[in-house]
Amino acid sequence: MASLVLCSVGRALRPAGRLGNACKLDLQAVPWRTRTGSTRHMSSGRVAAGTAGKRLIWATGGAAALAGAAVAGFNHLQQAEMATRTELVKDEEGNVAERCKKFMSPPITPMEVLEKRKEEISSRMEMLIMQTQAEFCRALEEVDGGKFKVDRWSLAEGGGGISCVMQDSNVFEKAGVNVSVVHGYLTEEAAKQMRSRGKVLKGKDGKLPFIAMGVSSVIHPKNPHIPTVHFNYRYFEIEEEDGSKQWWFGGGTDLTPVYIDKEDGALFHNVLREACDKHHPKYYPDFKKWCDRYFYIRHRGETRGIGGIFFDDLDSPSQEEVFKFVKSCAKTVVPCYLPIVHKHLKDSFTQEEKDWQQVRRGRYVEFNLVYDRGVKFGLATPGSRIESILMSLPLTARWEYMHEPSKGTREAEMIEVLRNPKEWI
Amino acid sequence: MASLVLCSVGRALRPAGRLGNACKLDLQAVPWRTRTGSTRHMSSGRVAAGTAGKRLIWATGGAAALAGAAVAGFNHLQQAEMATRTELVKDEEGNVAERCKKFMSPPITPMEVLEKRKEEISSRMEMLIMQTQAEFCRALEEVDGGKFKVDRWSLAEGGGGISCVMQDSNVFEKAGVNVSVVHGYLTEEAAKQMRSRGKVLKGKDGKLPFIAMGVSSVIHPKNPHIPTVHFNYRYFEIEEEDGSKQWWFGGGTDLTPVYIDKEDGALFHNVLREACDKHHPKYYPDFKKWCDRYFYIRHRGETRGIGGIFFDDLDSPSQEEVFKFVKSCAKTVVPCYLPIVHKHLKDSFTQEEKDWQQVRRGRYVEFNLVYDRGVKFGLATPGSRIESILMSLPLTARWEYMHEPSKGTREAEMIEVLRNPKEWI
Repeated sequence: MASLVLCSVGRALRPAGRLGNACKLDLQAVPWRTRTGSTRHMSSGRVAAGTAGKRLIWATGGAAALAGAAVAGFNHLQQAEMATRTELVKDEEGNVAERCKKFMSPPITPMEVLEKRKEEISSRMEMLIMQTQAEFCRALEEVDGGKFKVDRWSLAEGGGGISCVMQDSNVFEKAGVNVSVVHGYLTEEAAKQMRSRGKVLKGKDGKLPFIAMGVSSVIHPKNPHIPTVHFNYRYFEIEEEDGSKQWWFGGGTDLTPVYIDKEDGALFHNVLREACDKHHPKYYPDFKKWCDRYFYIRHRGETRGIGGIFFDDLDSPSQEEVFKFVKSCAKTVVPCYLPIVHKHLKDSFTQEEKDWQQVRRGRYVEFNLVYDRGVKFGLATPGSRIESILMSLPLTARWEYMHEPSKGTREAEMIEVLRNPKEWI
Repeated sequence: MASLVLCSVGRALRPAGRLGNACKLDLQAVPWRTRTGSTRHMSSGRVAAGTAGKRLIWATGGAAALAGAAVAGFNHLQQAEMATRTELVKDEEGNVAERCKKFMSPPITPMEVLEKRKEEISSRMEMLIMQTQAEFCRALEEVDGGKFKVDRWSLAEGGGGISCVMQDSNVFEKAGVNVSVVHGYLTEEAAKQMRSRGKVLKGKDGKLPFIAMGVSSVIHPKNPHIPTVHFNYRYFEIEEEDGSKQWWFGGGTDLTPVYIDKEDGALFHNVLREACDKHHPKYYPDFKKWCDRYFYIRHRGETRGIGGIFFDDLDSPSQEEVFKFVKSCAKTVVPCYLPIVHKHLKDSFTQEEKDWQQVRRGRYVEFNLVYDRGVKFGLATPGSRIESILMSLPLTARWEYMHEPSKGTREAEMIEVLRNPKEWI
């Protein structure tokens, strides 16, 4: 955790733009930390996106999570670097012990086991979620100046997790990045419920050995102009009576702004679309719709935020292909969010804007406690770690009776989008 | 709503004390409004309870909700008066129209219908819940100095309600007192779910005409030394295929302090026990246990507060007897809470105490959104009035990761009681 190596932007980012005019980043007053650690402020004003291309491309090759906003020119390269200044980890290369040094904590599964089984998807996925946690936490620490509190925990039934939380810090009111790797036995009924398609599985004496692992995160910033982000990437494996394995992946990343910023929405969705398009042309449109459907607060008639992607039960075309897709998604968590954080870092705000943020936080709590499948499953499971399940809740929230924004305000604009989800690209 | 008549304490309260030494009320610095409306501060210090008796007795005869803390001597009579200064309404006497003038709003059922059917339990219950709303709101306005916002609403399916909310006021952060009178048709499945014992009812073509009514309230004060209170008294009536009517009552009152104050706990539970004991010696002990069981946040291993009473499905020995019991309970909402509000009105508090209150508020939200049957039923029912269902949520709440009070603190003392519910009398 001590020896951070800064990434090489030149190597990591191909600066082609496909966001067009939608993407303008105000770099004014964005703090810019030099490699030696001192801080200066960028003097440039708005930087318009190039019109030659429309899609953001970021590096995924051997290098780590990368890229910032797709704007042409030198400044947005810096912007991208700012957003992603984190150590370079060569994906799936080198020995496990070496790679684990960069993680927030050693992985849950002993390193020698991971090394021995390094070709298995469950080992590769555990390394991926550990790496995603580390890259995201480092990027947030970089922009915040604070440090994550790292808690390792274990479950009596088998497995455990690593919860990283930064609370009441400089930029973030509450930032939680959690990894869990859990194994044990499921009843056939529980196995059916775990899977949204409800496929019936046959276990030995009705019991099915399973392994479930994932990385999940919710980031609530203090400034109401910086949106909340959530992501979760997970893998399940269940062994049936005859020894055959059922496996599937799930996940998604979604954004919950307090105010609409079309540039932010386009950037966020573009980064996700790019990850999806590399694997299947239907992934982005399908998973975008699924996201809007899933993060829906039915009793309010509103979505939780402006969506992103959401998928579950993904088990084709092959384990290798789906893993690669999930890896592409996991690699977007830094580049789809950090540029937005940097852009709004110094935005001023009023008490009314802060209050509106708090009201939206209340809605976030409503979704998470009333509808979220993961939270409901966790709360109903004896022995689960409640603090890790509920670290997704904001530090503060507010419920005002009959709160309805006045027509023509930015608050009303936000509500309108939540009631009628739109296309961002 | 304009012509308030102050109650006569001499007539309303039998000043016998049975709380013994447990009941000491600090009247220092309690603001005391004179009948002409000006404010002075009482100069007396702590007033010890008499030791002759142990139980609080309050008037219920023909007069209205009454009584304060059971302490001997002149000052606590004043205290009682302070707590209950509200108009005298002669229960179930006089014509309906006259009685309705004292309500926060005209009742949901037209007054001529209520007058015509004044002997029926459903009419008497509607008048009782309207009167309870009015008495409680007036008492809160008196101590707060603010005014309730009164919203009348109706449902497309039939019936409606009156929501009274005072938000971000002087004493109360959020005070909601809601009445609803709803009628329509239930499916047999829904009818079964409405009743906790799940009795199967037979409807005409599977449909059952029903009427459901109740008064419910949650009061969240600003000062962390003033507890949150909740009460709900409700009546259901379902008509079966053969025209016979199934009916039952439910309800309860419970207290959620942020810090333990044994006097408050004893006063609160004593007032409730007194109401119960007049009807059945097992009511208080049974309904106290039911309350601790019901208001339990399973995933935290804590009760929501220090309990009170809770009952449901009460349909014996007779409709008249159960109605009278519910009426006795409804009459306690002012005397079991207002003396506690007055006692702590001027308590000073630190930021740490305020933060702890906010953490406890977070737990309140968790209970209400995850477990509360009424909230779950309301959120799942299309067309229900969400703002009235969720007005029970506090204005502000807080979730701190891994919050655990240090040993020996007053916060730890609170947690201990929530983990191991105690007897208060």
